[in-house]
Parts: sequence; C-alpha cells; structure tokens
Amino acid sequence: MKLASLKSNSCRDGRLIVVSRDLQRASFADGIASTLLDAMERWQQVHSELNALYQALNQGDVESFAFDPRACAAPLPRTYQWLDGSAFLSHSALMQTAFNLPAIEGIEQIPLMYQGAGDDFIGGYDPIPLPSEKHGIDFEGEVAVMVDHVPMGCSAEQALSHIRLIVQLNDVSLRALAPREMKTGFGFLQAKPSTSFAPLAITPDELGEHWQQGRVALPLHVRWNNEWFGNPNGAAMHFGFHQLVAHAALTRSLSAGTLVGSGTFSNPDRRVGSACISERRAIEMIASGGQPSTPFMAFGDRIQMDIRDENGLSLFGGIDQEVVRAC
Amino acid sequence: MKLASLKSNSCRDGRLIVVSRDLQRASFADGIASTLLDAMERWQQVHSELNALYQALNQGDVESFAFDPRACAAPLPRTYQWLDGSAFLSHSALMQTAFNLPAIEGIEQIPLMYQGAGDDFIGGYDPIPLPSEKHGIDFEGEVAVMVDHVPMGCSAEQALSHIRLIVQLNDVSLRALAPREMKTGFGFLQAKPSTSFAPLAITPDELGEHWQQGRVALPLHVRWNNEWFGNPNGAAMHFGFHQLVAHAALTRSLSAGTLVGSGTFSNPDRRVGSACISERRAIEMIASGGQPSTPFMAFGDRIQMDIRDENGLSLFGGIDQEVVRAC
Repeated sequence: MKLASLKSNSCRDGRLIVVSRDLQRASFADGIASTLLDAMERWQQVHSELNALYQALNQGDVESFAFDPRACAAPLPRTYQWLDGSAFLSHSALMQTAFNLPAIEGIEQIPLMYQGAGDDFIGGYDPIPLPSEKHGIDFEGEVAVMVDHVPMGCSAEQALSHIRLIVQLNDVSLRALAPREMKTGFGFLQAKPSTSFAPLAITPDELGEHWQQGRVALPLHVRWNNEWFGNPNGAAMHFGFHQLVAHAALTRSLSAGTLVGSGTFSNPDRRVGSACISERRAIEMIASGGQPSTPFMAFGDRIQMDIRDENGLSLFGGIDQEVVRAC
Repeated sequence: MKLASLKSNSCRDGRLIVVSRDLQRASFADGIASTLLDAMERWQQVHSELNALYQALNQGDVESFAFDPRACAAPLPRTYQWLDGSAFLSHSALMQTAFNLPAIEGIEQIPLMYQGAGDDFIGGYDPIPLPSEKHGIDFEGEVAVMVDHVPMGCSAEQALSHIRLIVQLNDVSLRALAPREMKTGFGFLQAKPSTSFAPLAITPDELGEHWQQGRVALPLHVRWNNEWFGNPNGAAMHFGFHQLVAHAALTRSLSAGTLVGSGTFSNPDRRVGSACISERRAIEMIASGGQPSTPFMAFGDRIQMDIRDENGLSLFGGIDQEVVRAC
C-alpha cells in the first residue's frame, strides 16, 4: 500500500490519499482516516479498509484522480517524534578519520541516534529555505520507518511488527554549526533545520524481497545539480530498523507516528559515491591529506534523490528540491 | 490567565479548562478552543475570549466546578516540539568541576540546548514509570515557555512577544545513560525519558513583577521524600527565555505549541540547595574530593516541586510524583 498527504489549506496535516502502485492515480482516503497520523494511531482499525481502497484503485474500480507528487506535503507534514539514527558505519568511520575524532566506544553494539524536530517537515518537491550559505548547507539521503505505538522496553524482534510504513527523506544538515553542538554533548539543534520527505509512505510489503532484516536493500540515487553524486545501497545498515526502534524505546514508549531514520546512506565501496557532501569531503581530505575540494550547497542548488524498483519505478515518489534563501 | 488540560478518555490532548486565580474553580473552555494546542495555534483569535472567561470565573459569574490538579494531564499532553536549555551556568560549572569535563567554549554567549521528546508528557501528579533503578534516576526542576509560531531568524527582542504561556516541569533524567550519549556528540536520547509537567500553563502577567527580563524570578521549592532538597531562584538564568527562543529559531521556524525549557534551576549560593540530585552529588564530590554520598532515586521515591507567589499560593499547581517500575 502507498499513502500520501495532499497539501491542504484547511488542514496543516494534509489530506490523506491512497496512491496506485504505478504512481499514476490516487483516491481520497480521508473518509477512512482524516490524516496519516490519524491512520497510524488507529492502524489496526483502518489498515484493512485502506488496503481495500488501494486494491480497488490499482484495479481501476474506484473514483480517482491523476497523482501529482508536487501536490503532496511530507507524508506526515508534522509528527510528535522524529528520531534519526546513524546506522551506516562506513560513514562514521570516514568522519572519524577525516576529522581526527576520538573513536566512539561500542559503536558496533549501540546505535547512534539523535532526537530531531518533527514539528515542521518539508515536502519532497518544495524549496528548502535557509538563512545562510555560511552554515555549510548539506543534504543527507536516508530512509525512515513509521511505527504505531511502541511500548517501553520493546525488544528488537517485537519492534519489527510495529514498523507500519517506510518513507524516504533528505535530512538537511548545517555542517558549520554541527561540530560545536556535538562538542557540548547536547547534540544537534541549529545544525538540523527542517527535514524533507518524498511524498509516499509505503508498507514494507511494497519492497518485496528488498525489505531484508529491517533494511531497505536498494540503492538510493542521489544527483546534485543534475550530476551523479552517489547510489549507496541501504542493505549496508549495520543495525536494522527494528534494532533502532528498540534502542529508542528502552526508557520510554514511542507514540504512534514516531519516525526513526537510518542516517545518511553510506557504503564501504567508494565507487558508489555518497549520499551527503560531508562524506565526499571527508574522502577528499583523507585522499589529499589536506583540504576538501567540494564546496557545500549554494542557494539555487538542486538536490534529487530517488529509490527505484527493478523496473525503474520510483518507490517513494522521489525528492527534487532547491535550496533557497529564507526571506 | 491560567489554563489546564483535564484528562480525557476521548481525547489524547485533554479537555481545555480555565482555572481561577486562586486555583479553587475551573470552567470548560473547549467551546473556545478544543485543546490547549489548538488555542496556541489560534492565539490571536482566542486569547480575548479565553481571558473574558477567566475574568468571569474569577468573579463567580460563570458555571464552574472544583479544580482538582490531580485530574489534569500536562498542559500540553503532547506537543510537536520540546526543547530544553541549560541556562543556569552555576549548574554547568559544578558539573564541569566534579566530572573534570572540558570547558564548553562560548558558554556565556551561546545557550546550551537539547532537542527533547514531546510525544508523551506525564501529568504533574502521575507516577513516573521507568525500567530500572540502575539507570541513575534523577529529577530536574525547571520552568519552560510555550510560544506561538516563531519565524526563522526571530530576534531575542521579537521572541519575547511570542512567549504566550509559562509552565513548570520535572525533566526526568537517567544519569547513568547520559555520559555515553553526550560523548557521542548526538546528545541525550535514552537518558531523557518522558517529561512531567505541573497542571497549569499561565500567562506571563500572572507572575506580575516576578516576570523579569524573560525570567521567572521566584524560588522553586523542591522536596524529595518529604524533605527539603532546595529552593533555587529562577532569576539566576544566564539567558532569558527570549534569548533561548531566538537561539532555537536561528535556522528554522518553531511551530505554535513549541516548549522551550530553562534547564534545571541552580544558584551559585549553595545554601539554597539544588533542583536535581546530580548537582548535589557534584557538590559532594567536589567537597570530599571523591565519591558522592547521595544516591539517585529508588522506585517508590516521591518528588515534589512548587513555585509560589508572595502569599504562598501555588502558581503552576505543583508537582507531586512517585517513581515506579514500568510494567
């Protein structure tokens, strides 16, 4: 099943729609659940009805309209909790080497994760407004899972069944602000502005055999200013999403609609490139023993990200954004 | 004006009530705004009507019922963003000295702040369920402000007018989990379980002359297991709340209903005690040159926190909680 939230003047949380498997058509689903957050809070109740609508839509048996990814907000235009992991260890290793950071003890046993801001997400085809190029504007290509209510102390095994939907995102990061925030120990705040999401939230079964051990085992295609930047594969996550969810739920329950992210895609094989500029710069620094040659983003820059199935069909509807100066 | 959210089986966000100045009576306000979050999102529209109801309630001119703080949830039972500062520098200085931490550069110019979880707040008279005493269970007595929509790049001066309500809270912390999370640079996650809030959210004018330069200039009375623990004064905040809000809004807008906290109350004068166990332990470590003598909380422990006006009247309705083992 594929779900999305149409932008709506009357509802900050968007209007829930079901989107056909081929991304061509869509039907309103707000008669079943008013918003995607509402659906997630009542998933057991509404799941079957949403799925029936999805099947009817795929068969052309229900009223529908042409699907336009640009008319969509983020699947959850806002949510009560956004947690982002850093589960690709090749990324951490490159950062450590390039910036001569101390090794993080237990990094292979305990996931890295930060608490993000969920109050104001950006649609995948909307501009990214930021105040200054001096902040070191970067993108991070990722996927995340959306859970229903997860009780405190949930095991990784149990957590797998709480993963209801999967989304794709651009975790915009401001690299010039991050080092100080990391050094204080309080974590990212100004360094993590609003996050952007591709329009579709899809059930794990939509990934077929590519949903493997709580991982999205497909390449993420990243293009910056219309040029190839990387296509790392999500299978390389050191922790599966079920393990990330269990980590987050150790000392508190997670409310329905909580999003848990993978961290920027990264593979040990350098030939597949990167999903963020910072990693490419780290590789340049290590190779040259000095300064990086790739700059961060400038206003007007374009970033595109997509995950496709074996037939080339976009699974999440993609991301295509411009970075702009905030008014 | 004093507002609160009655617990409700039908609404996760509670039922909005206005509470009389003397905390004796209350009237339903959900005819004006369905929830406090709704009110905050439409503050310009609903503020006058809520205030008129408050005046009528104080004069006994409207239908009302006895106010029971124990029937209340947190003023916002959940919200889209919870940010917590650490604006009392005597607390930071004690922690640095006791644990031999490196000094944080620019601590007097740039506020410390972490992104917290806003998805599941606890009422001020409800138990605090936690999985293990081994995590080093601590309380932190604080206040926070609730803002309406704050645009990106908002100045500290402008931010003052976005502060609509003030709340009091217990920022429950797990001290055994914090050092590792701080060392990774990703900040607190497992170390910060759900936060608890006193029942009342009050407008700044309710503090009268005690609302000073964006600070709550009153002592916070903390009792642990029915014994005095501390009464540090909120006037000692190094940054005012307007400065904390501006810090948070540098690279993104803050949605209406965002909460920004002060950090645990702390004064340089040791005679006033502390508002968290960790600080008392730091003082003990410094004094003895060795181990602290005060343990962290045990299941069954009671924590009480209150801020009162000059007549001894509770301003936020207080906090009185027991720490319990999560089932």
